[in-house]
Amino acid sequence: MGTGRLEAFSDGVIAVIITIMVLELKLPRDTDLGSLRSVIPQLLSYLLSFVVVAIMWVNHHHFLRSARRADARLLWSNNFLLFWMSLVPFVTALIGSHSHDPRSVALYGIVMCFCSIAFAMVRSAIGQHHRDNPEVLLYHRDMWRKNVYSLLLYVLAVVMAFVDVRVSYAIFVFVALSYFLPERKIPDGGETGSHISSGD
Amino acid sequence: MGTGRLEAFSDGVIAVIITIMVLELKLPRDTDLGSLRSVIPQLLSYLLSFVVVAIMWVNHHHFLRSARRADARLLWSNNFLLFWMSLVPFVTALIGSHSHDPRSVALYGIVMCFCSIAFAMVRSAIGQHHRDNPEVLLYHRDMWRKNVYSLLLYVLAVVMAFVDVRVSYAIFVFVALSYFLPERKIPDGGETGSHISSGD
Amino acid sequence: MGTGRLEAFSDGVIAVIITIMVLELKLPRDTDLGSLRSVIPQLLSYLLSFVVVAIMWVNHHHFLRSARRADARLLWSNNFLLFWMSLVPFVTALIGSHSHDPRSVALYGIVMCFCSIAFAMVRSAIGQHHRDNPEVLLYHRDMWRKNVYSLLLYVLAVVMAFVDVRVSYAIFVFVALSYFLPERKIPDGGETGSHISSGD
Amino acid sequence: MGTGRLEAFSDGVIAVIITIMVLELKLPRDTDLGSLRSVIPQLLSYLLSFVVVAIMWVNHHHFLRSARRADARLLWSNNFLLFWMSLVPFVTALIGSHSHDPRSVALYGIVMCFCSIAFAMVRSAIGQHHRDNPEVLLYHRDMWRKNVYSLLLYVLAVVMAFVDVRVSYAIFVFVALSYFLPERKIPDGGETGSHISSGD
Repeated sequence: MGTGRLEAFSDGVIAVIITIMVLELKLPRDTDLGSLRSVIPQLLSYLLSFVVVAIMWVNHHHFLRSARRADARLLWSNNFLLFWMSLVPFVTALIGSHSHDPRSVALYGIVMCFCSIAFAMVRSAIGQHHRDNPEVLLYHRDMWRKNVYSLLLYVLAVVMAFVDVRVSYAIFVFVALSYFLPERKIPDGGETGSHISSGD
Repeated sequence: MGTGRLEAFSDGVIAVIITIMVLELKLPRDTDLGSLRSVIPQLLSYLLSFVVVAIMWVNHHHFLRSARRADARLLWSNNFLLFWMSLVPFVTALIGSHSHDPRSVALYGIVMCFCSIAFAMVRSAIGQHHRDNPEVLLYHRDMWRKNVYSLLLYVLAVVMAFVDVRVSYAIFVFVALSYFLPERKIPDGGETGSHISSGD
Repeated sequence: MGTGRLEAFSDGVIAVIITIMVLELKLPRDTDLGSLRSVIPQLLSYLLSFVVVAIMWVNHHHFLRSARRADARLLWSNNFLLFWMSLVPFVTALIGSHSHDPRSVALYGIVMCFCSIAFAMVRSAIGQHHRDNPEVLLYHRDMWRKNVYSLLLYVLAVVMAFVDVRVSYAIFVFVALSYFLPERKIPDGGETGSHISSGD
Repeated sequence: MGTGRLEAFSDGVIAVIITIMVLELKLPRDTDLGSLRSVIPQLLSYLLSFVVVAIMWVNHHHFLRSARRADARLLWSNNFLLFWMSLVPFVTALIGSHSHDPRSVALYGIVMCFCSIAFAMVRSAIGQHHRDNPEVLLYHRDMWRKNVYSLLLYVLAVVMAFVDVRVSYAIFVFVALSYFLPERKIPDGGETGSHISSGD
């Protein structure tokens, strides 16, 4: 079974997720500067989530290219990932309207934690397709380590939300930016292993 | 006529269905624990429907791979299925906001009944493509039996909603989980016949 | 230039159109029988529009298969069609909440008229690809006649809305059902020419 | 890495963007002529944005066909473009409900400016794939000039919004219509270079 429809379905779901977030931007009642300024936290939370979901899509794109088949484990770890990603618009709207509230920021962090865990599961399901290739396994171990770092940072962000939400926001931005750094290559057919800076 | 666009259109519709359900999650006015707790029934109904729609997508994926052409009967039984699936976000929001109300739970069950009937119609339309293959017909008869069991359970859930809605919820969860059990193989080109545990 | 992305984009737009209509179904405040009954006109208008959009998708599917290239005329007549189709959710919600109001029903009919005109334009753009094939031209002339009948019926529905909206609804249902009748064949590569009953 | 999934994801996002704008059309409370007339500014802003997004999709379609690979620069300039395009429904709703308000019209213009800049970035990322082909570079320089003209006009529209919003609207319509003019050809494999009137 090829991975074509898996990719098409995931693309569809992620495209809807990234786009419907904009429906959560509430029109200001008035357009004086004060009202327009009240849209800014919503716009910033939208920008953060757009970048996060776009990174997830790019990584998903990279991982699936090395999948060899759409087996049950891959299908369902992918569905688990899509479930948590689908909650991003909800928690984005939550921090957009309650940007200083610890519980909202913590909920955003919790959803990020589960996205991170789900990504590890998708990666591991694909790793199973390459059990016989020690080089790819080594690569996946490296990626796994990076995944664990992200997860620990997100857990930290959840905890810090109850101390100072600005620390949590800084962590969210930091994790997102860290994905733009170049990385070691996937040792499979000459693809570069950087999540997002490959191919150039 | 190939089934490519049929799959693409179905993927698009199912991707939108599974994602717009999250728009029905109403932001709590406040973020004290009481308000957040009031979101929990909505989240649980969302989780249930996400799993149900994901199972439907995986099964749809499996069935269509054995379709040989997009004839009128397949196109329209598929449209019939998509119609009932498209009502899932509506009834999900209904049980999310009236989780203890018998009529809402019964409506959820009725939509599930029709999804089940529509699946049987899609399966039967595809079965027509294999009229000359007794082994595939046998497989479809087995699947048909399973389909009938699900339908009867959903009918039971509709009735039980007026006695105790928890019984109905238990049935919805049970039917969903039962799809994760392994099954007999499709005798066509070595594909495994389990709905979702194939390929591993 | 192939028509692949044109199909993919159209499928995406039509999938979203057909699915977001369900967002216009307003949850009843209460779930007593009276409140649930108030949802029925909305459900019926949703059912009508779902069938109409599904027919449009099936026809779009058939037409585009005989397109030879995505030239400017086809791209923009297709965009013109998608524009009018995208208004279907709006007028569906309108007749759902004002089902006895002549102006709402007339607006629904006007959108149908323009969809019909746009379909004729898409058909004509594709007909241009077959200028050298008299048989296909003959087929397109037949389809054109059918298109004109639908258009005239929709114009009649708009006018009748101000006399008795039930006549308009009857026309909408009649035009939809008439697409399920078998038709003459497309004389191109043995494809059947019925809009929707082909291939069986 | 092929550009297939990049196209599929962009098509998905643009399809959702162009379609959810219709959700911003608010149903009139009543259907007397006055109430229906109040929908007209919303319909006009929807029409404008539909045409603008459709032009963007057609251009995106043309550019990506000459992309040779989905490298990081192309992926992220494309994501940058999709971000700004995804704000179009928001600013469309804004000018729909505050059509005479200078700040709303200026915000619409600002989003157009950034879409224009993002298009230049996508074009430039694709231009990099053809560094060795002076003819294509020349073509891209021409397109770049056109891009700069559009951007300057949009900047003018932002400024003029505070003088007379009708001037800004005229500029938006003028820029859109200017894309329907024929242009010089892409010197690559005989494709025509007009953005949208190619292939005929």
